[in-house]
Amino acid sequence: MENIKELIGELSSLDTASMYLEDFLLTWDKSLDQLKGVFITADILRAMRRNNISSRLYNSGLGVSLFRDKSTRTRFSFAGACNLLGLQVQDLDEGKSQISHGEIVRETANMISFMAEVIGIRDDMYIGKGHTYMVEVARAVSQGNAEVVLEERPTVVNLQCDIDHPTQSMADALHLINYFGGIDKLKGKKIAMTWAYSPSYGKPLSVPQGVIGLMTRLGMEVALAHPPGYEVMPEVEELARKNARESGPGGLFSRSESLAAAFKDADIVYPKSWAPFAAMEERTELYGRGDSEGIAALEEKLLAQNAQHQDWECTEELMKTTAGGKALYMHCLPADISGVSCKKGEVAATVFDRYRRELYIEAGYKPYIIAAMIYLSKVKNPAAKLSEQVEKSLKRKL
Amino acid sequence: MENIKELIGELSSLDTASMYLEDFLLTWDKSLDQLKGVFITADILRAMRRNNISSRLYNSGLGVSLFRDKSTRTRFSFAGACNLLGLQVQDLDEGKSQISHGEIVRETANMISFMAEVIGIRDDMYIGKGHTYMVEVARAVSQGNAEVVLEERPTVVNLQCDIDHPTQSMADALHLINYFGGIDKLKGKKIAMTWAYSPSYGKPLSVPQGVIGLMTRLGMEVALAHPPGYEVMPEVEELARKNARESGPGGLFSRSESLAAAFKDADIVYPKSWAPFAAMEERTELYGRGDSEGIAALEEKLLAQNAQHQDWECTEELMKTTAGGKALYMHCLPADISGVSCKKGEVAATVFDRYRRELYIEAGYKPYIIAAMIYLSKVKNPAAKLSEQVEKSLKRKL
Amino acid sequence: MENIKELIGELSSLDTASMYLEDFLLTWDKSLDQLKGVFITADILRAMRRNNISSRLYNSGLGVSLFRDKSTRTRFSFAGACNLLGLQVQDLDEGKSQISHGEIVRETANMISFMAEVIGIRDDMYIGKGHTYMVEVARAVSQGNAEVVLEERPTVVNLQCDIDHPTQSMADALHLINYFGGIDKLKGKKIAMTWAYSPSYGKPLSVPQGVIGLMTRLGMEVALAHPPGYEVMPEVEELARKNARESGPGGLFSRSESLAAAFKDADIVYPKSWAPFAAMEERTELYGRGDSEGIAALEEKLLAQNAQHQDWECTEELMKTTAGGKALYMHCLPADISGVSCKKGEVAATVFDRYRRELYIEAGYKPYIIAAMIYLSKVKNPAAKLSEQVEKSLKRKL
Repeated sequence: MENIKELIGELSSLDTASMYLEDFLLTWDKSLDQLKGVFITADILRAMRRNNISSRLYNSGLGVSLFRDKSTRTRFSFAGACNLLGLQVQDLDEGKSQISHGEIVRETANMISFMAEVIGIRDDMYIGKGHTYMVEVARAVSQGNAEVVLEERPTVVNLQCDIDHPTQSMADALHLINYFGGIDKLKGKKIAMTWAYSPSYGKPLSVPQGVIGLMTRLGMEVALAHPPGYEVMPEVEELARKNARESGPGGLFSRSESLAAAFKDADIVYPKSWAPFAAMEERTELYGRGDSEGIAALEEKLLAQNAQHQDWECTEELMKTTAGGKALYMHCLPADISGVSCKKGEVAATVFDRYRRELYIEAGYKPYIIAAMIYLSKVKNPAAKLSEQVEKSLKRKL
Repeated sequence: MENIKELIGELSSLDTASMYLEDFLLTWDKSLDQLKGVFITADILRAMRRNNISSRLYNSGLGVSLFRDKSTRTRFSFAGACNLLGLQVQDLDEGKSQISHGEIVRETANMISFMAEVIGIRDDMYIGKGHTYMVEVARAVSQGNAEVVLEERPTVVNLQCDIDHPTQSMADALHLINYFGGIDKLKGKKIAMTWAYSPSYGKPLSVPQGVIGLMTRLGMEVALAHPPGYEVMPEVEELARKNARESGPGGLFSRSESLAAAFKDADIVYPKSWAPFAAMEERTELYGRGDSEGIAALEEKLLAQNAQHQDWECTEELMKTTAGGKALYMHCLPADISGVSCKKGEVAATVFDRYRRELYIEAGYKPYIIAAMIYLSKVKNPAAKLSEQVEKSLKRKL
Repeated sequence: MENIKELIGELSSLDTASMYLEDFLLTWDKSLDQLKGVFITADILRAMRRNNISSRLYNSGLGVSLFRDKSTRTRFSFAGACNLLGLQVQDLDEGKSQISHGEIVRETANMISFMAEVIGIRDDMYIGKGHTYMVEVARAVSQGNAEVVLEERPTVVNLQCDIDHPTQSMADALHLINYFGGIDKLKGKKIAMTWAYSPSYGKPLSVPQGVIGLMTRLGMEVALAHPPGYEVMPEVEELARKNARESGPGGLFSRSESLAAAFKDADIVYPKSWAPFAAMEERTELYGRGDSEGIAALEEKLLAQNAQHQDWECTEELMKTTAGGKALYMHCLPADISGVSCKKGEVAATVFDRYRRELYIEAGYKPYIIAAMIYLSKVKNPAAKLSEQVEKSLKRKL
């Protein structure tokens, strides 16, 4: 309990007031104080739950979820976060809804929002589409609120778009903060965000982009590595470079086509498959034209291209080259584990298994990160409200 | 807050006691006092939410939803209403359930109702089926309750059937009441409920039927207009005629085949596509026989028939002929907007856009209308209970 | 209310403490005191609801449901039970989730459990799979909890597996207890658990297995009867035999191939179709190999085999041979009713109809049985907590 009060003290020293009523779409839209506010609030909410203190904010209200791609962990994280704050999840299933009848975004956004406090969206399939869609929804509910159509403006939370995956990268970062013992301990630490081979196709770029876009804010040395042709979005690479420059001593960003160079002396490694950006752009166009032959041909081409880089695997040998041979292995899960979930994949089974517990802990931050994003958007003075809740100590489990 | 107490005072002067434990299937089953009770209760619940007062009635309980047709806004309205009162929605998805195994209605109705406080049903696809199904469900849970199989009898709420769409027409009417400044202001106002061209097929008749069945109760001049062959159910037309006769001075019902005549001097226009009643009857039979060739042929015939009436569009020219050129444009949404959602549709884009905000406000009444229907069925003395809730002022957002 | 306090007194005299933090997978894993604890707790929760006393245990928390087979009544029972205790259901739909991407059980079990208090699983399709899967999930969340990945360990509740269907058999038994006026009244009563003809194919064996595995614990005379070839799992038959031997005077288990012998002087009859165990094993293998021709051939063979036993029907003539001609007819529903849901089925329409109310009451125990299983797993001293809740008398309906 002492710990909770200390954390609330820290939170109150940060400038997070401007998050009130704002969305969370991209980490690079947020100030460092705001990001720290999310980390600390997530830790506070977790500590409250551990101490059986309810952090319920609402006696009624909906949390709308809109998943345009398959999801287990993000779906459950969003549901858990909403439930923790007293909101009931209502899924907008486009198969069942009139969106399939050609309804426009603005109208739908308002129609689902009369009782909504938050809208969580996952739309990561097509380059140039996901973030744009979220901005459209955000604009629609802002207008609806300004026109007094919506009595409350629901907060839009990005549960993964084509550009960023903030609930993932923030959960990853909070894991690092607690693993290494504080956000200041991350300064100068080297993280290798690398491509890795997978026998599957078309994985989104938002995880590597989210990681390089966020970790460069925290004064880390970020080494991006991938085979030729697997570039991420140039704007995000540029942003990472700029972030690193501005992050003070220790901050660095580099890009290479060498897995070995990235792993060398790394404190943290994050090897993960993704699709080439250019191919994803091509796919978006093919889907736009409904060219199913083209899509099939592209898939075949990409799988063949992947297969040329089967040596991009996180092996025990590579792990030995990291700092003290003990870099922290990270992954957003599920990973393609060689000999387990596929013949040859992103990571050797022994490496994965040694870090399995840490990977699960990493994933476990996500519901609290999402809840913190909502909390800071919904409460004007979050430190005061959290203090009040801790003081009252309404039990979560009666 | 003064306003809320005034509204509760009004509510207490109405004879709504007989709504206790009753379903809401058709507006014409309800007395005028009962309808007014729903309008006022909806406004009270909305005002309570605006003033951050919880209207939670339950600490546990299920709201069962059964949608036999696609739905976004009604689904979210029902979810929002249930959540506002403290009920958790559980969807009966017939694809996943054993209904698809040939289970009979009575049994299913009881099996889903052990913990249910309300059952919301949408079943609008086939003439002669939807209302009948709801009555069957209502009878089943009545019997279950009488036999002490069900400790509580869930209230059945019609979320759209083949005959009526009370949550829509009541939300429409409440919009009119608040737009024009009171239910008495509607007396003598002319509303044009007209067919409009749509390139899509088989839209239900329950919206126009619900509107003419309800608005004729409120002393309005209701002008129904449609091309030849697009008659609504004769019983409902007869009922509208009778309602109008009994509604006192200013009350009128007329039917014509002229869009221009209906719009002329109208205070409100509601142009909307629907399928011909006779064709819907034919379709019901074809589906009953599983005659897929017949269904395809009927669809083609109906689209061709629709296409002969592309001039039934709500244009700026027509709007100019309404009262002061400023009739209130209404629609249950989504509308077929010419040049936006289709090449040629129900309404000109400029007309739709000018009334967009009003249309969204109109839609925003639906969750409160549904919540009010449930509230009046579940609480013996609603004015007293609402007073108590306002007095206590449990916060909705803590 | 006196009654509730009496029941709580009874509960406190039972040794149920060891259920705390334990799963409920098979009734035969539980002591007689533990089973009695579930029955009494279910009756207490039902009485509390009747007296409008909330039994809410949580201010937040998820109840995860995983249905690998169609379900209406069990789905709604689980939802109702979770809701009664304050948990929000989140469905793990494998079609929508990444399980379909080959994710392993241990990982998924942890990923869905960060905020979960209970996981309800239905997996009854394949012999040798369902129970095994539940054990795997249980082990995974135990490990996750031990590794402090999961702050709380969710309780796993078997909502039907290949071996047992404890929420069904326990609801059945509670119905018998209340019907006959006490658990002691069941001693020496004869129950006929018999196969019955159905024109459908592949019904799970878990209901008859669950019934013979449980009722033999209660000192009943259990007569299992089926045509040749319709044996249940030999381990379960063996277990039933052993249970009966150990259950004291009056306890008996017999197996025959005569419907008439089983019904003769029975106090209770439970005629129900199921698939032959050997055929279910074969089907599991065929599905494993993806042999769709083999599956179709097996189905045809099984339907033909079923059709040879159309005389295995619960007729009025057979009912006359039961004790006083008035045996209690039971079924887990939905039943195949001759002349109603099929031409010829498990039971004559007049028999079914005479017992319809009792059948619905039987089904109505299931939500309370599930809630009781969760309650006893989540509360260290359930009698004290229930006393406290009754004392406080928080209203369920405000």
